[in-house]
Amino acid sequence: MQLSKPRVVIVGAGFGGLSAAKALKNTDVDVVVIDKNNHHLFQPLLYQVATAALSPGDIAQPIRTVLRGNKNTQVILEEVISIDKENSVLKLSNGKLEFDYLILAPGNRHSYFGNDDWEKYAPGLKDLNDAIIMREKILRSFERAERNYKNKEEYKLNTSFVIVGGGPTGVELAGAIAEIARKTILKDYPLINAKDISIKLIDGADRLLVQYDKSLSKYTKTALEKMGVEVILNSVVQSVDENIVITNNGEFESSNIIWAAGNRASPLLDTLDTELDRSGRVLVNPDMSIEGYDNIFVIGDASFLVDANGKTVPGIAPAAIQQARYVADLIASRKSLEPRKPFKYLDKGSMATIGRAKAVAQVSKLKFKGFIAWMMWGLVHIMFLIDFRNRLKVMTEWLWYYVTFKPGASLIFHNKTTEKEKVS
Amino acid sequence: MQLSKPRVVIVGAGFGGLSAAKALKNTDVDVVVIDKNNHHLFQPLLYQVATAALSPGDIAQPIRTVLRGNKNTQVILEEVISIDKENSVLKLSNGKLEFDYLILAPGNRHSYFGNDDWEKYAPGLKDLNDAIIMREKILRSFERAERNYKNKEEYKLNTSFVIVGGGPTGVELAGAIAEIARKTILKDYPLINAKDISIKLIDGADRLLVQYDKSLSKYTKTALEKMGVEVILNSVVQSVDENIVITNNGEFESSNIIWAAGNRASPLLDTLDTELDRSGRVLVNPDMSIEGYDNIFVIGDASFLVDANGKTVPGIAPAAIQQARYVADLIASRKSLEPRKPFKYLDKGSMATIGRAKAVAQVSKLKFKGFIAWMMWGLVHIMFLIDFRNRLKVMTEWLWYYVTFKPGASLIFHNKTTEKEKVS
Repeated sequence: MQLSKPRVVIVGAGFGGLSAAKALKNTDVDVVVIDKNNHHLFQPLLYQVATAALSPGDIAQPIRTVLRGNKNTQVILEEVISIDKENSVLKLSNGKLEFDYLILAPGNRHSYFGNDDWEKYAPGLKDLNDAIIMREKILRSFERAERNYKNKEEYKLNTSFVIVGGGPTGVELAGAIAEIARKTILKDYPLINAKDISIKLIDGADRLLVQYDKSLSKYTKTALEKMGVEVILNSVVQSVDENIVITNNGEFESSNIIWAAGNRASPLLDTLDTELDRSGRVLVNPDMSIEGYDNIFVIGDASFLVDANGKTVPGIAPAAIQQARYVADLIASRKSLEPRKPFKYLDKGSMATIGRAKAVAQVSKLKFKGFIAWMMWGLVHIMFLIDFRNRLKVMTEWLWYYVTFKPGASLIFHNKTTEKEKVS
Repeated sequence: MQLSKPRVVIVGAGFGGLSAAKALKNTDVDVVVIDKNNHHLFQPLLYQVATAALSPGDIAQPIRTVLRGNKNTQVILEEVISIDKENSVLKLSNGKLEFDYLILAPGNRHSYFGNDDWEKYAPGLKDLNDAIIMREKILRSFERAERNYKNKEEYKLNTSFVIVGGGPTGVELAGAIAEIARKTILKDYPLINAKDISIKLIDGADRLLVQYDKSLSKYTKTALEKMGVEVILNSVVQSVDENIVITNNGEFESSNIIWAAGNRASPLLDTLDTELDRSGRVLVNPDMSIEGYDNIFVIGDASFLVDANGKTVPGIAPAAIQQARYVADLIASRKSLEPRKPFKYLDKGSMATIGRAKAVAQVSKLKFKGFIAWMMWGLVHIMFLIDFRNRLKVMTEWLWYYVTFKPGASLIFHNKTTEKEKVS
């Protein structure tokens, strides 16, 4: 690596990080992408891995492969421990790394509002490992229900699902579970009666998908209810224990409690020693830089910004990608000192899928629902997957899944791990 | 389940167990298949998952799905702890299970000749979890080599591979690693020089594939050497430690030591309290039953038999399948008391692949090698996969792999697990 060129270090290979690296491809800088995973994850479809519709390989791609064309880019598989902004150096789990420019795109994890002990009873969904664990948890509870179908209590516990959080992830998980539970997977469990399966979606607010228009929230609730999901609103979780969620609005028992409520930005940002919001996101300047450092940027859902249009930038992939390109341009054109044009988010809309042929989409004032929204959702996601060789595979998986109603990936990998789980 | 019908319990859902269940499909018995994994594994291709050519889902299928058509069959996901042959009952990790007939097909695991502490330094390859761990180990060492390419020692250690055991698995692994290391994966590691990669295949015998004809062993050695694999024979392993294998014929350092030597049948068989051979296999009667119990059978590579033709039945899938059908027929026709016709193994040949367009095959006296053997190998395995919906996917994966030389599944799932590994 010629040290004459400025070194741009990018932390995190999500949509933001990868887009930044790609935008810097043919510029006069050296790029280092560092991530603790070796793959980029197509998070919008993660819930389909968790519900055994897709395989991990269908929605993940090695970072090195994605960036293979970037001659000025080095990829490092390691964890960043802390950031020393004074001296422009990162402390890694193994060694140090200096930077001239730093783009932080570490993303966030699900959070338990300070009750981290809830995680073992109510796993969340952020990476492949989460998805595999959730999938195994679901499959194992079907196995237990089938095996103990005579034991009413066991049977009830293992045929109940409780999803906490009525945002897009919660809605998508509830819908997907309703479909696999009622249709696909049940074929393999003759002793389980579809009518016995209970799926509850709990949220503290008075409607689902609060970030969407009320009419879409209403549609989503009705659609989920038609699919057999019980939507329980105005219910704030007070505590989670093994097989039980306690809210201000009743208790809910299940051996499948899934957490889709609340995120917290990467703890790495705490080491920046700059102002964070309640969910750990960095309050960035209008140019995505941090207070007092025009060479350190935070993008994606690890940052918080009210943009030049006075709109809060949402924590979704399109926003991260726009921020990545904006910052890459600042760096490439060395706009480090002259006044910078503030970042403006171009709202390309947001969408959530509810189930087969059911989705909601919102593009600024425009609202779509049902099959049209679902077609939009499918198209957008296929286009998004364009960089993946897996695109074709994902489509064939979907087609197969559609035609046969058979889940594509009902595998439990780690009997060892899960034996332990059973004991604990 | 009507208890009037005799209950046949099958332990293990490998080729033997599944074939037995299928053969009993339309017979007047109740069948229970019990396995500690929820999936049947297509073991002959496991090494391709370990070397990131295929994804786990491509070679595994949920047992329930495979047996969905068997109306008289129940599938249980659990571990069998011990066998009480006097009272015809199995002790499970959770409960008991009575049987009228018992078919034991628990398979075997790689063994370390009593040195189980070697396993953490030299993992073996028997199930999906093994394959995922091996794949991650290989990928992580490439990452370390790339990251520390200036540190000669680190670099050398992480670009060396030592495979212990010159049987089919060892040969297949050596060949596959030579291909991914030299061609496919290297594309993603610009700082690693293909010439630096060292792959050693060690065996205690004076030739590879001892169960094959000498001419094929010779061909295999030459073919591997052409691919850059160093074949080291007459070298008995004396000890394995972290990153080093010590033999009577020199020491070999590598951060990728892979164990493909020696198997031991499932420890469950010890609880049978009947005669076992050195590698833990049950010495079965000519009808595959165990001494003194004409209702308990052991099939597949968990059993040892010199058949009616005076030939030792090999521990390969075709033999397990033939034994399964033979035993199923005994049970279905209630030949429990009248004299039974002894089992005869029909040799359909055995084959091992070395690499792209290179394989060896032997059908009784006939010997094949090179491209023809490889085509045979490919065809046979595709036909074997016929029960798998994955067949098409495997073929497309292969095609893709062939055309692009890009490994299809270079994913590291568990940063958590592997962080631990790194520490330990």
